[in-house]
Amino acid sequence: MKLPSVIVFACLVSLLHARTINVSDHDIVPGQDVARQVNDLVKSISAEEGVTLYFPEGQYDFHVENATETYRAVANHDNGLKRMAFPIFGHKGLTIDGDGSVFMFHGRIIPFTIDEAEDITLKNLTIDFFQPFHAELKVVAHNEAEHSIVVETDPEQYPYTIKGENVFFDRMGQEDPLAGSNMVFDPTTRSPIYEAYKYHLNVNHVKARAIRPGSFELIDGYDNLPPIGTVIIVYGVHPTSRRNHAIQVTHAKDIRIENVTVLAAGGMGLIVERTENVTLDGMKVTSRADRIVSTRADATHFIGCKGLIQLDNCVFEHMLDDGINVHGAYVPAVEYLGDNTFLCEISHFQQWGLLFGEPGDRLAILSRQTVLPFFETEVSDIQILNEKRFLLTVKDLPAEMPDVLLSFENLTWNADLIMRNNAIRENRARSVLVSTKGSVLIEDNYFSSQMHGILIEGDNNFWYESGAVQDVLIRNNTFANIGFGHPRGYPLLASPMLTADQHFGEGHYHRNIRFTGNTIRTFTGNIARTLSIEDLTISDNTIEFSTDYPAKQPDQSLVLEYCHNPKIERNEVVGFPAPLLMTVTEDSTAVVNNNNVGLSRR
Amino acid sequence: MKLPSVIVFACLVSLLHARTINVSDHDIVPGQDVARQVNDLVKSISAEEGVTLYFPEGQYDFHVENATETYRAVANHDNGLKRMAFPIFGHKGLTIDGDGSVFMFHGRIIPFTIDEAEDITLKNLTIDFFQPFHAELKVVAHNEAEHSIVVETDPEQYPYTIKGENVFFDRMGQEDPLAGSNMVFDPTTRSPIYEAYKYHLNVNHVKARAIRPGSFELIDGYDNLPPIGTVIIVYGVHPTSRRNHAIQVTHAKDIRIENVTVLAAGGMGLIVERTENVTLDGMKVTSRADRIVSTRADATHFIGCKGLIQLDNCVFEHMLDDGINVHGAYVPAVEYLGDNTFLCEISHFQQWGLLFGEPGDRLAILSRQTVLPFFETEVSDIQILNEKRFLLTVKDLPAEMPDVLLSFENLTWNADLIMRNNAIRENRARSVLVSTKGSVLIEDNYFSSQMHGILIEGDNNFWYESGAVQDVLIRNNTFANIGFGHPRGYPLLASPMLTADQHFGEGHYHRNIRFTGNTIRTFTGNIARTLSIEDLTISDNTIEFSTDYPAKQPDQSLVLEYCHNPKIERNEVVGFPAPLLMTVTEDSTAVVNNNNVGLSRR
Repeated sequence: MKLPSVIVFACLVSLLHARTINVSDHDIVPGQDVARQVNDLVKSISAEEGVTLYFPEGQYDFHVENATETYRAVANHDNGLKRMAFPIFGHKGLTIDGDGSVFMFHGRIIPFTIDEAEDITLKNLTIDFFQPFHAELKVVAHNEAEHSIVVETDPEQYPYTIKGENVFFDRMGQEDPLAGSNMVFDPTTRSPIYEAYKYHLNVNHVKARAIRPGSFELIDGYDNLPPIGTVIIVYGVHPTSRRNHAIQVTHAKDIRIENVTVLAAGGMGLIVERTENVTLDGMKVTSRADRIVSTRADATHFIGCKGLIQLDNCVFEHMLDDGINVHGAYVPAVEYLGDNTFLCEISHFQQWGLLFGEPGDRLAILSRQTVLPFFETEVSDIQILNEKRFLLTVKDLPAEMPDVLLSFENLTWNADLIMRNNAIRENRARSVLVSTKGSVLIEDNYFSSQMHGILIEGDNNFWYESGAVQDVLIRNNTFANIGFGHPRGYPLLASPMLTADQHFGEGHYHRNIRFTGNTIRTFTGNIARTLSIEDLTISDNTIEFSTDYPAKQPDQSLVLEYCHNPKIERNEVVGFPAPLLMTVTEDSTAVVNNNNVGLSRR
Repeated sequence: MKLPSVIVFACLVSLLHARTINVSDHDIVPGQDVARQVNDLVKSISAEEGVTLYFPEGQYDFHVENATETYRAVANHDNGLKRMAFPIFGHKGLTIDGDGSVFMFHGRIIPFTIDEAEDITLKNLTIDFFQPFHAELKVVAHNEAEHSIVVETDPEQYPYTIKGENVFFDRMGQEDPLAGSNMVFDPTTRSPIYEAYKYHLNVNHVKARAIRPGSFELIDGYDNLPPIGTVIIVYGVHPTSRRNHAIQVTHAKDIRIENVTVLAAGGMGLIVERTENVTLDGMKVTSRADRIVSTRADATHFIGCKGLIQLDNCVFEHMLDDGINVHGAYVPAVEYLGDNTFLCEISHFQQWGLLFGEPGDRLAILSRQTVLPFFETEVSDIQILNEKRFLLTVKDLPAEMPDVLLSFENLTWNADLIMRNNAIRENRARSVLVSTKGSVLIEDNYFSSQMHGILIEGDNNFWYESGAVQDVLIRNNTFANIGFGHPRGYPLLASPMLTADQHFGEGHYHRNIRFTGNTIRTFTGNIARTLSIEDLTISDNTIEFSTDYPAKQPDQSLVLEYCHNPKIERNEVVGFPAPLLMTVTEDSTAVVNNNNVGLSRR
């Protein structure tokens, strides 16, 4: 692949001015809190280009107490004052080389913050937290009569107190109730258990009773008692449970993360916003040997980026949320103020603080009913009022505005995505979410997630994640037991999320999705579910019956709803007792259905 | 009084360049949300000196939704992202003249923020909030059998929901439980009721039961049921109950507040930090006709100021905390890092973010045991690590440092205080707290607060409020029924707050306090309680028996503990059946006790 010229140039600049600093020359050594020393060193080189900070192999400890701090808006997290270990603000050509070191974080401190920086490389290091951001409760006994379970936990890693009949976890100065997010995991596979959705903790009923240090009883908390030997993961309540991501990149350019492992985070492993060109090579999100889960949220997440996002040789596993999500943000207009200016509001609280655009960015104006664009224009001015609202002035408007609720989409900030040779598995939720207008290539990956494999969505409702895709090629991947935790999981789900208020417009939402040459090992028979797509190809895939989980009666294996020109060709279903069924709704047009084996149109 | 020359100069500059803007020329008119327009106008004149923003009389509404916002550390409040109506940042010579207007605030928006600004005047305006930051529950019935009370409230002003047996108040997007701060008020006097401390809501027991909209029952919440007709004020939990002060002034100079009324605030009426010269003339903090209480916290509060703080003709009443507090901050050293540098930590969470000092400030180093200074030096550098911690480098240190825990006090930032012709009354807590090294004159005021009249404290423990006073003259004031809500209230309490760990040093903490010519109307017989003072005069005061509350058996009317050179002279006690008693501890020295009438040494 041809490298963008900016990267080549940046590399040349780095080579010319390169300077390597051995951090041990700056009082940064294993065996002591180095947060302040690292803060000072990183700040001291902010104006110098082409520096490598070299950490000789060892464990470096970063404590929260003396770390620098600033207020940060962090997309898909809880905004707030953040203590930081590496405040990389405005640096150019900086490399952090850990030489295989472990960076151990103590308390609520953000490992890496990269803001308005260019040509930054993080490599050869492991990010871990001394105390993680969830609790793991092993089920050791049932008492069917009392409808209770006995759990055991490690009070060192997951300190808790029982007050009255309530359990509270002491998460680094924050008292988290048992209420909130929870999920039952299998300690052997370190993944959510089969049909985990059936074991939902009812926080309104549950009563706790201490047994001995590290063990307590949970009474009347479950309709179905989680099996003995499973582990209940309890991970906090909104809006206080996503305060501590591992790496944030924002308003930056040319970022490389190579051979970096994230073992824990109180949020995502990597959250990237409005950044151009991000390369992940050999990034790993996984759990530590003595823990079941890794990050509290997604392994990686990209919002409103451009250029190329490329992932090779990455492993993301044991997370409590998705593997990767690449999307933009729809922003609804609250009011037209005249003079081409709209009062806009960022609707989801975890996107507050997002920079929607800058002058010169191309925009689409959409109907919030159809979620379809009807006009393209350009940002001429943005005036931020507060984290939630801004004034958007556009260059021009249609002569006659349709009388509908409006939202806007930034067309300039849509990244291309290439994913090759990655594994995303044993996590709650999905492997991949992608809704970018850029060119998307997903090939030779392994996906085994609890809900969907690849979700191509777009919603103008709750999360307001844009947008419609235009060029997606998904080929030669393996999808193994997708949906093991949830009965309606599909290897491919491509469908805008429409609410009761929203309806189909004149056209289709997504277009040009090709799903080809993939191997699907499935115990449900689910292949794909698609809605509102123009030009869809599902071809040359092999669908094998999997015996890893109890077989399901296949039902809606392949669903085409309101699609134009879908081609379903040369797919081969193996090992199922009867053909899998394809459902095509009547509003689908120009349907091609050829040479499939073991797949029947209903 | 002679004006400081800076004020004279600033006034001249203003006169030369004066420009008055009638805000109605900028789309700022009654009857609509003007927050955005006011934000824009205030920002647009930040570089122009000597502007008056003139608001023609009317009600101006400021809604939170479109207001500008920034992260603010606010002393004695909850830091956070604050929406602002008047962001006065860096302005010089600005006057906001309301011409008698009401500024009505809707939601969690800060009326006035004055930061790094000079010669700023706010005048002729009233600050009110559409929804206040507390709830008022009128007690309408008792059910002794069930140990319950029935309350009524206005669900428009104090919206609430009952979930299960719990009451939650909807305070502008924040759900506040019944738990937390609460106090019983008398709706006629709008002050805490007599011995209000006896009616404490037990939030662990209390159960709520809806009766009809606007009325519910509180069962098992009180040992003593609050009398029928009284009003329970419920005002939130730390740390979410002090987010919305009315006026913040910080790092500023020459601030005048004239004829400004504050009717509500979710915090203090005025909080001032590190500012030189503040004049309040005719400032009023009071409650609106249809509400019992005014501000959620102190009427006014000054921390680490210098120059002169002057209050004339002010009325502060019906607050849920003190009338005025003028103090500095002790900051403990965590560790000596060598090279004259100390790692310091701001201890109280509501002082996080305070700027303790700047290079050139004079400092005292104190023993945390004796709370007495042993060395004076100067700040040569301050490096802020985060809101809580900073590195302090001092010019010099004693040749031999005593082996004690240390704290620091800023000697440069200690204001003088003049208070004349003010009334502070019918509030929870104290009238005046003062612990500044500056010259203090408090004369011709009226004080009638629920706890103490004037508290001269200083503690190196919980709040870490410095410091020891040097020159305090309190004369010709009236103290009426001080301590009506609390049995140990004194017109004058002058005593450092020492913990079990702390002890008297070689010297005395405070010095030169004169309490003279005051009239005390009291039903308790309490006059003053003093500890660790050198040079104390209590003279020429008249102490009259008050029949406004049930008479108490006078006990410790005047207490002198570890005082040197106290003069108790020519005080006259009137109307008590027996002499009031003065207690002098044996460690007091050079005691003068002359010509008192109705006051006997025990």
